[in-house]
Amino acid sequence: MNDVLSYLDSHREQQLTELQELLSIASVSTDPDRAADVRSCASWLEAHLLRIGMPTVRVYDTDGHPIVYAEDLRAGAKKPTVLFYGHYDVQPVDPIDLWSAPPFSPTIRDNKIYARGATDDKGQVFLHIKAIEAMLAVDGSLPVNVKMIIEGEEEIGSPNLAPFVASHTDLLSCNCIVVSDTSMFAPGIPSLVYGLRGLCYVQIDVQGPNRDLHSGSYGGAVQNPLNALVTILASLKDEHGHVQIEGFYDNVLPLDDEERASLAALGYSDERLLKDVNVKELFGEQGFTTIERLGARPTLDVNGMVGGFTGEGAKTVLPARAMAKVSMRLVPHQSYEDITKKITAHIHRVAPPGVTVTVTDLHGADPVIVPRSTPAMHAAVRALEETFNERCRFAREGGSIPVVLLFDTVLRSPTVLMGFGLNNENAHSPDEHFDLGNFYAGMKAAVRFYTYAAEMV
Amino acid sequence: MNDVLSYLDSHREQQLTELQELLSIASVSTDPDRAADVRSCASWLEAHLLRIGMPTVRVYDTDGHPIVYAEDLRAGAKKPTVLFYGHYDVQPVDPIDLWSAPPFSPTIRDNKIYARGATDDKGQVFLHIKAIEAMLAVDGSLPVNVKMIIEGEEEIGSPNLAPFVASHTDLLSCNCIVVSDTSMFAPGIPSLVYGLRGLCYVQIDVQGPNRDLHSGSYGGAVQNPLNALVTILASLKDEHGHVQIEGFYDNVLPLDDEERASLAALGYSDERLLKDVNVKELFGEQGFTTIERLGARPTLDVNGMVGGFTGEGAKTVLPARAMAKVSMRLVPHQSYEDITKKITAHIHRVAPPGVTVTVTDLHGADPVIVPRSTPAMHAAVRALEETFNERCRFAREGGSIPVVLLFDTVLRSPTVLMGFGLNNENAHSPDEHFDLGNFYAGMKAAVRFYTYAAEMV
Repeated sequence: MNDVLSYLDSHREQQLTELQELLSIASVSTDPDRAADVRSCASWLEAHLLRIGMPTVRVYDTDGHPIVYAEDLRAGAKKPTVLFYGHYDVQPVDPIDLWSAPPFSPTIRDNKIYARGATDDKGQVFLHIKAIEAMLAVDGSLPVNVKMIIEGEEEIGSPNLAPFVASHTDLLSCNCIVVSDTSMFAPGIPSLVYGLRGLCYVQIDVQGPNRDLHSGSYGGAVQNPLNALVTILASLKDEHGHVQIEGFYDNVLPLDDEERASLAALGYSDERLLKDVNVKELFGEQGFTTIERLGARPTLDVNGMVGGFTGEGAKTVLPARAMAKVSMRLVPHQSYEDITKKITAHIHRVAPPGVTVTVTDLHGADPVIVPRSTPAMHAAVRALEETFNERCRFAREGGSIPVVLLFDTVLRSPTVLMGFGLNNENAHSPDEHFDLGNFYAGMKAAVRFYTYAAEMV
Repeated sequence: MNDVLSYLDSHREQQLTELQELLSIASVSTDPDRAADVRSCASWLEAHLLRIGMPTVRVYDTDGHPIVYAEDLRAGAKKPTVLFYGHYDVQPVDPIDLWSAPPFSPTIRDNKIYARGATDDKGQVFLHIKAIEAMLAVDGSLPVNVKMIIEGEEEIGSPNLAPFVASHTDLLSCNCIVVSDTSMFAPGIPSLVYGLRGLCYVQIDVQGPNRDLHSGSYGGAVQNPLNALVTILASLKDEHGHVQIEGFYDNVLPLDDEERASLAALGYSDERLLKDVNVKELFGEQGFTTIERLGARPTLDVNGMVGGFTGEGAKTVLPARAMAKVSMRLVPHQSYEDITKKITAHIHRVAPPGVTVTVTDLHGADPVIVPRSTPAMHAAVRALEETFNERCRFAREGGSIPVVLLFDTVLRSPTVLMGFGLNNENAHSPDEHFDLGNFYAGMKAAVRFYTYAAEMV
């Protein structure tokens, strides 16, 4: 393995040049005008995977953007199979004027590479490809069977991935899945994410009178949809941030002492968060630490709201309607369906008289928790600790990665979320970047992971 | 007087032609591109007032649009003086595509004249001018001294009227003021408005984190400005519509039995309101009838609110800020200043932790109540009852007409609000119109009012 690691060190210039090439392709999946760029990114990966020596590479067409698939099963049936998942599509670049340099002209400053997709997820996909290249170049073979699935629609909700996975369960069968699309706990501190929150996202529409009314002529006699909506929304949480929907916490898996201790041991810094977002105090459910609230407790946020007159100055309107979007992050064993039913019932129960209230289910995902003591996790811990010379932390992430649930339920293999990004790398914002130290370390951690994964079975 | 009334009847064609001429001038005061039209409307009135025989007519320049002033004081010092107030500017015409005919090409359909300004307030100004013309033509003199002030900035809040009035108190001194810029209680039922609600209008800005955050990564740990704002807004009223601001009702003049009886006698129809605005039930403060809530009780409405993601679909944002506009209609003896202080204190008291809340005073006016038993009111009642052959009702209006307070405090003369509009004449909407029956009746009522006003002193 040492020769493989040396190979990685001695090919840095080439790795960077190629990564810049990959990052130059404007594969914005949500923009119909960029469909050709997305396809050309898939072709670039196909050619590159063939060039590094993957024996089988295919680009699968879907109803949307193509899926790139590659495999090297030459390790043989006696060796385990690792499925790598990543995505080659990127977020839009708006607001473009806030970028220091053009988003698809990768630039290196301060040992970071700046470009759209640098950390999310092209840079992290590419470090796996380079790790595999190094093993193939030095050893002529891989220590495990490797399958790679790299999709082009992650940033638009992976609409075509579920049907593809469902109809290709044999092709994708594996002993574990590895994903590098999350963040490290902090600079220099590697982590494995084992919990992802689910999501329940609803829209509330409140219809009052048939037209905007003059609040002087009608105020006091006709229910105001904005007043009605704030009453509904305020009823969802108490002043301590505890959700008031009946039965909301019924299925929440309590944090056991061991997990609380392990989360506490992460040494999460409230001070850093206060400074990061520039607020005077944090706010959340009582009886839990910030790191517990962020990953292990469900939340409820109003994501958007609008109604009436919102321009400059004063207009005395009693609006005809008002709208709000509300989402809840869910934790095991809450279910998206159950919580959607419960919030809908709650809203209708507390809706004030004189208005018509509609609740629309916009989006949802169940929470996921992956076991921390699988052989794949052990391989990942060992790979990370050897590479970073630092104890690996187990973290829960507040967001949702629906593909993890998909793999869990359809492929029935455990997923390892081994990310090399950092929280402040502007994944969905201007000046997205990826730390090159973590890029280089990530390649080595990947080599070690595939090597130790060979001992899994 | 009968000859004067006959004169009015025999000049209908001419009155309509002239009114159409006046309504053709696009005197939209808020639109800088229409400034020349506004001025040309003032000139039209100046010429017209001279032509009907007013001995003194002047156009006063202001920092904005001009004020037209006319007087005929030939009745002499022994006769009382009536000051007529009206405005010749009009609301904008947007949305223009909802008009059945061009807003400045007056058309007559179904005994109504359609044009911007028809009811608010050119038609109602013009009926006074025509009443004066008839008296001058038939009698050669007026029964009282008449002063007329017709401004061009009412629709933009009369910014230059207060300084003009304050610096011309002698010019404008009078025994009573008459205004025709309100509505009749119902078709065929004349009314005098004796109460106008005041206004307190504030904007609430809530600043949370320094940028929009991902609700998955930060939700549960950082206070959400939208959640904070709905908590604040919901605290302003209880579920029965009663305002919860400490001391809000302290200075509210209770309704006495006589006024409650007189409001009840108006025969206000809840069913008509339900149908008008198309809601299933009305909503308002308990213990009061709809007509009491509309005119005699203070109210609180959220007039606008915005924050976060309000487009199609789901975006899991925890917004950096949120904003709402809130207004309260005030009744005697609440004061705009006092209520602004009280709501500001309330908001800061209930503001949740973790956000910065700012309250801005946008606008305000004190409520007004004019005595119902002045000689001027008696003259108006008599004029209206003789004209409409129907008992005159006393009404409170929910809106605010700040000039009434201005005249009350600066000129110290009682105001008579004798309106000939109807509530459904689309004063600020497309297809504004004025009932020609009320236009003709209004001219006669005006003649009678000036005549009976001669007996005031």
